[in-house]
Amino acid sequence: MSRLPVDTVRDVLWVYRQRLIDLQRDPRLICPVIFKNQGAAAGASLAHSHSQLIVTPIIPPAIQGELDRALQFHNRQGRCLVCVMLEQELQSKNRVVLETANFVLCCPFASRFPFESWIMPKRHASHYETISPELLPELARVLGLALRNLEWALDDPAFNFVFRSAPFGEQGLAYAHWHIEILPRITGIAGFELGTGTFINSVAPEDSANILRKSTQRK
Amino acid sequence: MSRLPVDTVRDVLWVYRQRLIDLQRDPRLICPVIFKNQGAAAGASLAHSHSQLIVTPIIPPAIQGELDRALQFHNRQGRCLVCVMLEQELQSKNRVVLETANFVLCCPFASRFPFESWIMPKRHASHYETISPELLPELARVLGLALRNLEWALDDPAFNFVFRSAPFGEQGLAYAHWHIEILPRITGIAGFELGTGTFINSVAPEDSANILRKSTQRK
Repeated sequence: MSRLPVDTVRDVLWVYRQRLIDLQRDPRLICPVIFKNQGAAAGASLAHSHSQLIVTPIIPPAIQGELDRALQFHNRQGRCLVCVMLEQELQSKNRVVLETANFVLCCPFASRFPFESWIMPKRHASHYETISPELLPELARVLGLALRNLEWALDDPAFNFVFRSAPFGEQGLAYAHWHIEILPRITGIAGFELGTGTFINSVAPEDSANILRKSTQRK
Repeated sequence: MSRLPVDTVRDVLWVYRQRLIDLQRDPRLICPVIFKNQGAAAGASLAHSHSQLIVTPIIPPAIQGELDRALQFHNRQGRCLVCVMLEQELQSKNRVVLETANFVLCCPFASRFPFESWIMPKRHASHYETISPELLPELARVLGLALRNLEWALDDPAFNFVFRSAPFGEQGLAYAHWHIEILPRITGIAGFELGTGTFINSVAPEDSANILRKSTQRK
């Protein structure tokens, strides 16, 4: 995907959007999961470039847990957790890889994986499918760049990306903020991680961001 | 570990027990995690046979979640979830690989991984470190057999095992039941699993148990 022309990546992002708009008309479908597995270490079983879109008839536990914590934060602080995080990241700049007019690419605080990077829209929105088509070329540029950064920094690593977007149903949630999580798979998920749900990450996100920023500047 | 003499495996199990008994005297230490990573796909970074014991100063989220659900079940049903599960497994026998005087080896219902196998003590106990040393040779036989089953059935796969044992502190919890989870790593953890906390398992536990039972009978 990193090697596709930006127009093609935009088309893929457009297809994700259109599929979600269509699928939410089926009342059995609840929770959209858009993801990509690249490389055997990331669980890919097909060699050609592809991504996957599954809508589950329940809210899976990890997503429900995140929604619960986001709602708790909103109830306590009166603001969206990701909006606050974006504000802090843009202030400190330590973990920001790239800022464009509408998106921020950064290595989040307490990330699970070395070089984990998130793409977040600056303007609050809970559902990816509500994105304006006019923003898709910009998002395609940021996503393509994020993937090329990883390729350059980590020599073409296996990776997953996962879209976080609120379940179908209630629109315009004040506490949920869609984003894309890019997860390089250069370290294994071992017994400690499987047993505890806690990830040991040997690379500080500030160091990851530094290296990825250098990659961005090369282009 | 599968190739160690049963007396050596018993010694390893005894060391786990003694370490927990000693470490719980340190009030900073809360939650014991005993685990083993074998093979690169399971996150092992050392070639020689080894296992690891970490005690965390918090209760990690996945363990807290399990304890919460076990407590909820106990509050509702008045019984331990694993005790009820053992009773059902021993009645149906569909997923049981081996039953000995004090332990059951089975492929649990709705397991995350193909050929996932759990070793559970029949008698309720929340903390592994309270095991009678007299039971350790029997547990060592069952653990060695479980690992040799995997070796035979899956051609020496990468695997993790993780002990589930209640946090230090309150002894004799009625709702928590220690056990060992053996997790073969023949399939990847991909974007869907990372994004949702839900695992796609293409082998029914009844089929896994059938194959592992044949391996047991060969010996």
